[in-house]
Amino acid sequence: MSFVPSQYRLGITAGGQLGKMLAQAAIAWDIPVVVMDPDPACAARQLGMKFLKGNPRFREDLLKLRKEINLLALEIEHVSIEGLRDLQSEGIRIIPNPESLELIQDKGLQKKRLAEKGIPTMPFVLLDHEHEIVEAVQQGRIQLPFVQKTRKLGYDGRGVKRVNSMADLSDLLAGPSVIEQLCDIEKEISLIVAGNPQGETCVYPPVEMVFHPEANLVSYLLCPARLTASQAEEANHIAIETYHAFNPGGLLAVEMFLDKQGKCWVNEVAPRPHNSGHHTIEACATSQYEQQLRCLLGLPLGNTGLIKPAAMVNLLGEPGYSGIPRYEGFEEVLKLPEVYVHIYGKQQTRPFRKMGHVTLLGKDIEELTEKVELVKQKLKVKA
Amino acid sequence: MSFVPSQYRLGITAGGQLGKMLAQAAIAWDIPVVVMDPDPACAARQLGMKFLKGNPRFREDLLKLRKEINLLALEIEHVSIEGLRDLQSEGIRIIPNPESLELIQDKGLQKKRLAEKGIPTMPFVLLDHEHEIVEAVQQGRIQLPFVQKTRKLGYDGRGVKRVNSMADLSDLLAGPSVIEQLCDIEKEISLIVAGNPQGETCVYPPVEMVFHPEANLVSYLLCPARLTASQAEEANHIAIETYHAFNPGGLLAVEMFLDKQGKCWVNEVAPRPHNSGHHTIEACATSQYEQQLRCLLGLPLGNTGLIKPAAMVNLLGEPGYSGIPRYEGFEEVLKLPEVYVHIYGKQQTRPFRKMGHVTLLGKDIEELTEKVELVKQKLKVKA
Repeated sequence: MSFVPSQYRLGITAGGQLGKMLAQAAIAWDIPVVVMDPDPACAARQLGMKFLKGNPRFREDLLKLRKEINLLALEIEHVSIEGLRDLQSEGIRIIPNPESLELIQDKGLQKKRLAEKGIPTMPFVLLDHEHEIVEAVQQGRIQLPFVQKTRKLGYDGRGVKRVNSMADLSDLLAGPSVIEQLCDIEKEISLIVAGNPQGETCVYPPVEMVFHPEANLVSYLLCPARLTASQAEEANHIAIETYHAFNPGGLLAVEMFLDKQGKCWVNEVAPRPHNSGHHTIEACATSQYEQQLRCLLGLPLGNTGLIKPAAMVNLLGEPGYSGIPRYEGFEEVLKLPEVYVHIYGKQQTRPFRKMGHVTLLGKDIEELTEKVELVKQKLKVKA
Repeated sequence: MSFVPSQYRLGITAGGQLGKMLAQAAIAWDIPVVVMDPDPACAARQLGMKFLKGNPRFREDLLKLRKEINLLALEIEHVSIEGLRDLQSEGIRIIPNPESLELIQDKGLQKKRLAEKGIPTMPFVLLDHEHEIVEAVQQGRIQLPFVQKTRKLGYDGRGVKRVNSMADLSDLLAGPSVIEQLCDIEKEISLIVAGNPQGETCVYPPVEMVFHPEANLVSYLLCPARLTASQAEEANHIAIETYHAFNPGGLLAVEMFLDKQGKCWVNEVAPRPHNSGHHTIEACATSQYEQQLRCLLGLPLGNTGLIKPAAMVNLLGEPGYSGIPRYEGFEEVLKLPEVYVHIYGKQQTRPFRKMGHVTLLGKDIEELTEKVELVKQKLKVKA
């Protein structure tokens, strides 16, 4: 088989940081890229041969891509399934596949699929209204504390609420929800699985996610995660099983809890490049973005091996600042050896908005955690 | 100091592969990029916020950038010096600096500067007309064989001729030339030096260049070059001296011969990212493209250390094929671990045209040379 880049037209929606980094990988192979995003000033605005304004949540916007592309990759789950089916019926190859995405974009269906397939995930119930939650607590069918997750449109910590006490019941999230038993978390980890149409799968090394205490967002991650050999093996096995439970095609990020007994529980999945895979650009033999392309094009999967231990620090908008971003401490951070700064290009910063990330390579986790502290201390996104 | 990407407008001229890879580095930092190239279908065509059609050899074309940018980086030497001076007088920061570029773009002045500064370079004479060369040979002032290089506009092996015999004298290159004594070459190496406005310099590890037997182009390179410790030290010292001899600001690639006695001779220099530095994207702590940006922005220089031994194979258009490129063997090459394919996006292939490159990482030079052979054997650019 010959590769003829000019035969392709790759649609990427939307043009946030994940779409931007995917576009960079595609352009390195000279694949023509069309970006669709509601905002012409999106992160990917400097990339691609064409930009289309549109919101992938709307079927009619997705249809604008019909004559423009023959491949489509998503960077977000919240996309019109009908629109995707329309595009698919025109012969456009899409990852993740719409059937799988339909399950995943509804956290209720996602949990049910995990449970049906016997994949360890925390016990849960599905309830449609807040008053049903209150009743269930009052009747002792649900124990406090628990986690409430809205079934649709959650993202980056939005749509997730920890309910600790009866008092919190007056402030529940609206709409159909997953009510999930709290896990006694030792640490949170993530593994990214990739699969191509030939039926091959591969898994990236596990990463350990350390959360921001306030923002419910990843503050930094370490790769490889600090796990025992048997924990790592179990996590790897569960990640592959989870991939097959959904069969999304392309990438599936599998976020897990490791509990205090050392057991893994799948928290949730994302069928796309993932924040917990940014470090793969510099730290792994194949980046998650190139891997996504390989899956989409039906090419052999790339090696996922870690070239060097890595850390990734999210650059979150500093609380108290909104407006045109300036990156304080940039110069100091650039003095570190093996430091890779990615600035996404969002034109406005806001408190805790993901504005960029910094990947660090180092000889071991000790060296990396020192570098992480320095980056977190020095580099601030202000306005 | 805060870094505010939106304060910059980076002009890149032209939009060939070096411009493309520089634009990718700039966009990773969200620096707004304006590309100027004579060809709107150039390699960098999918990158940047604006494209301007223009040929940087022409002063009036460069002047189109005047109101568009506040930084300018070049990917080629053949640029109007008057145009650069005009832009500089408007406050635009440029690397390389025009004074230095003026010396370098004339290989006669370049050689004179090297000789004046006591940098080892093969003995030479400058002659303006072919008949003067013939006379000098007849009068015994020049010995056969020798190398003739046109003083201006040489590139990628064009403008260089090896003259072996009296018969070759009927087929000399036209115009003012450098006539250079032949070096008894053991191998060719290259070192890239970077310098920032603060006066810091740093050097990338030496690479060994293996030339294509027909095309007078690099076929592949290996890093680190196979040199003794004292040869590597000498090469490093000469590279830094050469940087200071020209003081271009930004990058200076210093190509050298290592002769059969193990002595280094500077062949020529290029004040920009260089083919011999492509591997730095994946193999070094800081890529040559990010380094060029750091220099331009007056940021601290990045670490140049090698993360892993590397090879880089140029993908040259296969002789006998012209037209829309197809990359035969792409799939097979992607099965290798730690392989990075870059397809530049030139819309037409021609025999020996540089269409892309492949970087390979490996544990040692033996493993790398095996991978190189596989890539050279399998991956062919046809039409």
